[in-house]
Amino acid sequence: MKTDKSVKETAINMPEIKSDDKAKAPLLNSSKAIAVTVEQPNRGSKKGIASSDFVLRLFAMGAALGAAVTMGNNQQILPFFTQFIEFLAQYNDITTFVYFVTANAAVAGYLFLSLPFSVICINRPLATTPRLVLVIFDTVMMGITITAASASASMVYLAHNGNQNTMWLPFCQQFGNFCQTASGAVVGSLIAGTFLMFIIILSAFALK
Amino acid sequence: MKTDKSVKETAINMPEIKSDDKAKAPLLNSSKAIAVTVEQPNRGSKKGIASSDFVLRLFAMGAALGAAVTMGNNQQILPFFTQFIEFLAQYNDITTFVYFVTANAAVAGYLFLSLPFSVICINRPLATTPRLVLVIFDTVMMGITITAASASASMVYLAHNGNQNTMWLPFCQQFGNFCQTASGAVVGSLIAGTFLMFIIILSAFALK
Repeated sequence: MKTDKSVKETAINMPEIKSDDKAKAPLLNSSKAIAVTVEQPNRGSKKGIASSDFVLRLFAMGAALGAAVTMGNNQQILPFFTQFIEFLAQYNDITTFVYFVTANAAVAGYLFLSLPFSVICINRPLATTPRLVLVIFDTVMMGITITAASASASMVYLAHNGNQNTMWLPFCQQFGNFCQTASGAVVGSLIAGTFLMFIIILSAFALK
Repeated sequence: MKTDKSVKETAINMPEIKSDDKAKAPLLNSSKAIAVTVEQPNRGSKKGIASSDFVLRLFAMGAALGAAVTMGNNQQILPFFTQFIEFLAQYNDITTFVYFVTANAAVAGYLFLSLPFSVICINRPLATTPRLVLVIFDTVMMGITITAASASASMVYLAHNGNQNTMWLPFCQQFGNFCQTASGAVVGSLIAGTFLMFIIILSAFALK
């Protein structure tokens, strides 16, 4: 009988508790629902940003690697030579170009190593720590890429146009291919730098 | 008797409900308390970051302006001259240095104009839009500063050491002061670029 009463009590009380729960539950549920609806597109857009980051990183890596390889293989031998002198232009004739190859190879290597972190950012779009680490290194690497590209660009400009005031004569009329290849490599490096710039700006949006 | 029972029931049930409430209430309150305690220092630290951003911006502006003015006033007249030739070295003898002056002046101007936005970020440390706008322009301006600095650095290096392979002769032995002033300006610009790099990284932390 007691058990029956208790059963009855619980039977009566259940709706009370339920109504009590209802008074709170909808609030909780609705707030959760809001949280979910707010979070979901944010998470989605961040995942989209992280995916673009990965693709841009691949492009930047290709551009930097291409620039390094192009410049590193840049040499031209003129078809005429004397017994003692061979007219050979190599990338390491100009110190800036040596820095260019090193810097772009380093940036391409960094970008390759950063790919796993980028994948982490795709899988966990709301995690900020890997993204912050990437932003710091990306900024430094963008600086390195741009120093290499612009220093080499000024050398290529000098090789093309020379400078009458300082008596630095152009040599691109003789070594046309060498200059063209160097220009191409510089453009590749500038493209890599621009991609890195976009990656940094995207990261800022992802961290928002 | 029934009412008594119901009273007894409620009397018995009250603590149950209370315990039920207790089971939820502390969680809710504690989560609110956590939210408050997390938000408050976050706001404080973001305010600190925004203040450092403002100070760094002032430093970077000073460095960029100093670099532009130093290079813009850079000229040296050698104490010997002939009837037709005056040995004068001016910053605009080298095209890269002209770009250097323009770029650094532009960056200094941008940094001056960005100060109000930085103040907004100090007053509203949790606002992300002004900070995002700043990050985008900071990244571009950092790029410009570094291109100017590194292109000019390669020219200064050439002026100091020359390049035997391309027959570009150094002229710093003759125009020592000119070269020293140019080197100083380049260092100033590199410092401005480094400050901008720190500003971008700080912004990433502020956006976190």
